[in-house]
Amino acid sequence: MKSPDIFQATREKFTLPEGVLYLDGNSLGPLVKAVPGRVAQMLEGEWGRYLIGGWNLAGWVDMPARVGDRVARLIGAAPGTVVMGDTLSIKVYQALASALALRPDRRVILSDRNNFPTDLYMAQGLIASLDKGHELKVAAPEAVADLIDESVAVVMLTEVDYRTGRLYDMAQITAKAHAVGALVIWDLAHSAGAIAVDLAGTDADFAVGCTYKYLNGGPGAPAFIYVAPRLADLARPALSGWFGHAAPFAFEPDYRPALGIERMRVGTPPVLALGTLDAALDVWDGISMADIRARSIELSEAFIATVEAGCPDLELASPRDPQARGSQVSYLFEDGYAVIQALIDEGVIGDYRAPGIMRFGFTPLYLSHEDVQRAAAILVDIITSRRWDQDRYKIKGKVT
Amino acid sequence: MKSPDIFQATREKFTLPEGVLYLDGNSLGPLVKAVPGRVAQMLEGEWGRYLIGGWNLAGWVDMPARVGDRVARLIGAAPGTVVMGDTLSIKVYQALASALALRPDRRVILSDRNNFPTDLYMAQGLIASLDKGHELKVAAPEAVADLIDESVAVVMLTEVDYRTGRLYDMAQITAKAHAVGALVIWDLAHSAGAIAVDLAGTDADFAVGCTYKYLNGGPGAPAFIYVAPRLADLARPALSGWFGHAAPFAFEPDYRPALGIERMRVGTPPVLALGTLDAALDVWDGISMADIRARSIELSEAFIATVEAGCPDLELASPRDPQARGSQVSYLFEDGYAVIQALIDEGVIGDYRAPGIMRFGFTPLYLSHEDVQRAAAILVDIITSRRWDQDRYKIKGKVT
Repeated sequence: MKSPDIFQATREKFTLPEGVLYLDGNSLGPLVKAVPGRVAQMLEGEWGRYLIGGWNLAGWVDMPARVGDRVARLIGAAPGTVVMGDTLSIKVYQALASALALRPDRRVILSDRNNFPTDLYMAQGLIASLDKGHELKVAAPEAVADLIDESVAVVMLTEVDYRTGRLYDMAQITAKAHAVGALVIWDLAHSAGAIAVDLAGTDADFAVGCTYKYLNGGPGAPAFIYVAPRLADLARPALSGWFGHAAPFAFEPDYRPALGIERMRVGTPPVLALGTLDAALDVWDGISMADIRARSIELSEAFIATVEAGCPDLELASPRDPQARGSQVSYLFEDGYAVIQALIDEGVIGDYRAPGIMRFGFTPLYLSHEDVQRAAAILVDIITSRRWDQDRYKIKGKVT
Repeated sequence: MKSPDIFQATREKFTLPEGVLYLDGNSLGPLVKAVPGRVAQMLEGEWGRYLIGGWNLAGWVDMPARVGDRVARLIGAAPGTVVMGDTLSIKVYQALASALALRPDRRVILSDRNNFPTDLYMAQGLIASLDKGHELKVAAPEAVADLIDESVAVVMLTEVDYRTGRLYDMAQITAKAHAVGALVIWDLAHSAGAIAVDLAGTDADFAVGCTYKYLNGGPGAPAFIYVAPRLADLARPALSGWFGHAAPFAFEPDYRPALGIERMRVGTPPVLALGTLDAALDVWDGISMADIRARSIELSEAFIATVEAGCPDLELASPRDPQARGSQVSYLFEDGYAVIQALIDEGVIGDYRAPGIMRFGFTPLYLSHEDVQRAAAILVDIITSRRWDQDRYKIKGKVT
């Protein structure tokens, strides 16, 4: 262990069932122990006590910006550039619609074919709705950079591939897009809380992400959106809701967007969900993303080393170079779904993504070096002893 | 009291601070006592225990439809025609975008100028985004029906006016729209849980609403959307997220809308907020909306009678005919904001909407005849004794 031992300081802050090694925080982060108390306080001490007055007395109205500032620190964004709300799908739509409006003479949305489906679906829905001849062009991840040319209005990529963990070079892609006048939207679903992101330093235009994975905000926790300050007052929010209005409580008949990132708010904020997330974010106080990244690499390298030693033929679906992957490791295996079920039966929770991908996420906040070695050893043991039941487990999907 | 005494059965199910008469459930419903326990169970017993497994083991994935069915009963809709998620603003956008796509040769969205601002803003944002020459035409509420002609693609109205409580004739407007080939979107924000709504019987096309008012779902609770079964498979969801896909977990590259109302789902559902709402909806078990409506009229009539007797000159901003108003009563008064503050100081919580509107909501679930009489008496006493401080309270907005 070369990096600071974050685990010693944070493991006790999480609720994890006895005997479980949880390598699926990349799908749904675990419960932070402080959350139930904080939620109970919001219910009884805020909603129950203040009723409608909670909007002002408990500060509910400002939560999207206040919680956004806390997320901003973790993704290399300045305070006042991130706002919370809605779902990642909705935030993708807002960013895409804004980007297309900023590049009215261009018709191409460029993405990669392995992007998480909802990003592609939202682009398809927007294109159909606009009906102006826009095109969603997708390519293999390694071919995307070469397709960035002056026809491209916006490059929309998920920084860390949800299946393989493959990592884009955010600085390089962003610079290449800007060189030809294109905008870039980064989906940070598998980045926020997982790796060091530098939105301001790489001059990214838009970024979006969810908070229920590495940020442990709970199932269906609110999403976030970042808009570069240089664009925030220019972006036209297609989803122009009253909380993005310059004066939401003046009840004016016409929409006037708020200045800055606030215009990306839409409807009434999901107060209880924001409070849940807010409590979960306390875990990050004093934690540096550079330290998390260093530790995450140590963990994933240890996992791979153990698996390589025990199952040299198991096909790694993730980049072998840790600098080229996010905080997850995936293997390609025909009976992957059944193996994941066998692992779960033995207390190791990873997950499966069709076709054939077994995924394991590494979160230094609650996984020790020993945990990861033990999980890898159990995987090796299951594979080498062929201890899985391919008849019992038909392949079926699970929630990412 | 002629109608069944709902209050006796339900008052004890709500947390209300000692000494408070809460006539603002039309803005934010109070906390249902069963909610904190249910939420604690979801946090510790579902999320904490099942982790990612909760999506299947705790049935999270089906919550939008399951809770939607419970809301459906309260708004005269069949099971399987309502789905929960997002915010009311987002649901307005989905309904509008779907309606415009169903009437591609028409360019008018007809609404009333007193509609809640976010409905108008979302229409404006959609129109700007489509950039196809659509027009948002607004008129006075009483003039809307006469403007329904063959230029109109969709009539978008809030059934109960948020300021005055003025009630549209849903059956009449819907029939008139259908007669000229127009569609109708009903915003039920101030209807759901407040009055008897018959979406199926009136043959409404779309309906949307929030659940944090009369349905007591909590601050920022999820919204709902209804699509008539005859349209559900035709509606093209502009916001085409993965949870509205026919096979969300197949991770297909192209969007294929689910059959029926499920296509109106967008992103990952807000599980904790849906659980909160689900627990709050238990209060409605065995309650008929016809009984609620009868009782609500008795309460509002009693309130008006007391105020009329004590302050004959106070201007009623709501229709005097109870059949023509929702479950609220509003008065127009120049110093209305200061009077509302004086009422709050004396334990009567109503609210204020610019310009000059004092609003009082009636919810038979937790307000008795005596409560309402007492609230009216305090209002009369404040007005007649001029017991308010207009200097101390500058007019400012509050959350609807």
